[in-house]
Amino acid sequence: MIKTDILIIGAGPTGLFAVFEAGLLKLKCHLIDALPQPGGQCSEIYPKKPIYDIPAYPEILAGDLTHKLMEQCKQFEPGFTLGERAETIDKQDDGSFIVTTNKGTKHHAPIVAIAGGLGSFEPRKPKIDNLSDYEDKGVEYIIKEPEFYRDKKVVIAGGGDSALDWSIYLSDVASEVTLIHRRNEFRGHLDSVEKVQELKNAGKINLITPAEVIGVEGDNKIEAVTVKQGAKTFTKACDHFVPLFGLSPKLGPIANWGLEIEKNAIKVNNALDYQTNIPGIYAIGDVNTYPGKLKLILCGFHEATLMCQSAYQIINPGKRFVLKYTTVSGVDGFDGTRKEAPKAVVKAID
Amino acid sequence: MIKTDILIIGAGPTGLFAVFEAGLLKLKCHLIDALPQPGGQCSEIYPKKPIYDIPAYPEILAGDLTHKLMEQCKQFEPGFTLGERAETIDKQDDGSFIVTTNKGTKHHAPIVAIAGGLGSFEPRKPKIDNLSDYEDKGVEYIIKEPEFYRDKKVVIAGGGDSALDWSIYLSDVASEVTLIHRRNEFRGHLDSVEKVQELKNAGKINLITPAEVIGVEGDNKIEAVTVKQGAKTFTKACDHFVPLFGLSPKLGPIANWGLEIEKNAIKVNNALDYQTNIPGIYAIGDVNTYPGKLKLILCGFHEATLMCQSAYQIINPGKRFVLKYTTVSGVDGFDGTRKEAPKAVVKAID
Repeated sequence: MIKTDILIIGAGPTGLFAVFEAGLLKLKCHLIDALPQPGGQCSEIYPKKPIYDIPAYPEILAGDLTHKLMEQCKQFEPGFTLGERAETIDKQDDGSFIVTTNKGTKHHAPIVAIAGGLGSFEPRKPKIDNLSDYEDKGVEYIIKEPEFYRDKKVVIAGGGDSALDWSIYLSDVASEVTLIHRRNEFRGHLDSVEKVQELKNAGKINLITPAEVIGVEGDNKIEAVTVKQGAKTFTKACDHFVPLFGLSPKLGPIANWGLEIEKNAIKVNNALDYQTNIPGIYAIGDVNTYPGKLKLILCGFHEATLMCQSAYQIINPGKRFVLKYTTVSGVDGFDGTRKEAPKAVVKAID
Repeated sequence: MIKTDILIIGAGPTGLFAVFEAGLLKLKCHLIDALPQPGGQCSEIYPKKPIYDIPAYPEILAGDLTHKLMEQCKQFEPGFTLGERAETIDKQDDGSFIVTTNKGTKHHAPIVAIAGGLGSFEPRKPKIDNLSDYEDKGVEYIIKEPEFYRDKKVVIAGGGDSALDWSIYLSDVASEVTLIHRRNEFRGHLDSVEKVQELKNAGKINLITPAEVIGVEGDNKIEAVTVKQGAKTFTKACDHFVPLFGLSPKLGPIANWGLEIEKNAIKVNNALDYQTNIPGIYAIGDVNTYPGKLKLILCGFHEATLMCQSAYQIINPGKRFVLKYTTVSGVDGFDGTRKEAPKAVVKAID
């Protein structure tokens, strides 16, 4: 059982900044995210896209924003349960919660903060009858660890940046990469499209277009896909089939946690602390709604901060809280590091 | 008469970020600040101190934060009335406001956003009977423009960073710099203390310690100060006397604008848009208060953003507002500049 002070569902920018703010109050955080790495959509969907409305960043790439937030909170040693989806929540007699993931990992905390963004990102799957039989048996929808494909025959399907970028990356790792797309045209960064063209010309990527994978087969694990190209249908041997058709956010199991939901978002009492209708459960960032709500990262930062202050009062009942400014008090990391402003000296001049 | 969409009282971080958020909504801003430059206390009081809790900045100097915010909002061409204090506000028949400064500059806008921080920074003045008679006649409490002191005899009083730093700076500009402090010990950055020692040894700064200026004299303008050093009292000729005893924030004339005030802060309806009890007047950042309020810069950013959305509705009644993400839509500056993410291409691979 993983134990922590604040259990954060969602490791996007709002969740990561909550780790920092909680740390200032000496509260420890653990984050659960369905994606294989922290950063939420900033890392998974548009890491190379610039954001212009992060305060004091005239421009920052979404991936860099994640790196900066990770750097800022790292001294408070957050724990992570990645690649797992928070599935059920059970309120204990003492008011604390146990949250269990789809893989059975259990987490125990007095406070749960849902920073789930638009929901957990679920892959769009191609319509192939027996596809689900091969999940975890050679069919993957997200590439978590490229080394997993070392010296394997991989078929990737899709026509966007993910399909292009992973085909390029795996062309150096896998023994064979085949990229299948239903059109001749790909949609992505110019660099990526040109690089795939180059690797195709060099014989390092097999390109099959316009074509579709319409079947999978194999004995206990995938051994081949069936490809339809125009009037022609043929079999292509492979160890892995990775359809990269994008991710679509779903509120998912959280919708059944007894929280008040409005338009696919969790209602919170914004007047105070972004707490939900269940005491001890907060919702911060894009996942929540209240009058005047704006789904902006900078609003999530504010909400995360007020949530931590409120959580502190629940965890330390009756203890008086005094806000300290980091410029004045410095920052003491859980890892023993300390950041502080250079001290003024008091020194005679003679 | 200066005309604008949103008149912002206070050019600190919150006010500057409001310019950017307003610009995204095509609203123009003008800022009034009592200090001679933008940035509020970040620029005036602690420009060289690090802040650790600006989201996605593990560390940023307060002065650099100001520069980044200025750069981010510059494309929306904010206007500035600096070195003047907002004094009176008059509501017009059409619901708009005219704000007049202590120097008589008039500003007209449908929306007023008070981003006044802890108040306007008023200098702490030494207790010298006739001192106020010489204000603007050789007695200054803030150095606005160092060139003003070119080839003049300047007496600076004080023992902190401002007194040290300006003595150093003016030792190259003024014909004579005299630094007077009531103790031998100065309190400031080690660098600054050591530099003053060095300039004193080189005869470029006259140091008189422990001593106090107890009188000023002159015919229509200052001509000398009276200095008390131990049992000895003497006269020191000068063209300027600049006591740098720190700034102390005062809510000031805003306290008389008919706004609901609680503990020296302006009450707002945080549940919606940070509007005050007077429709069309908002209060954002450290100057406001509401249940759960935290006086943090990042909270000011959020409040500024929600304020702009609400102001948009007042300025454009009935117009439907659709939130656009900068990553998707880009940012169009009022100066004709455009920032946008590199476009994806749609391109065949053959």
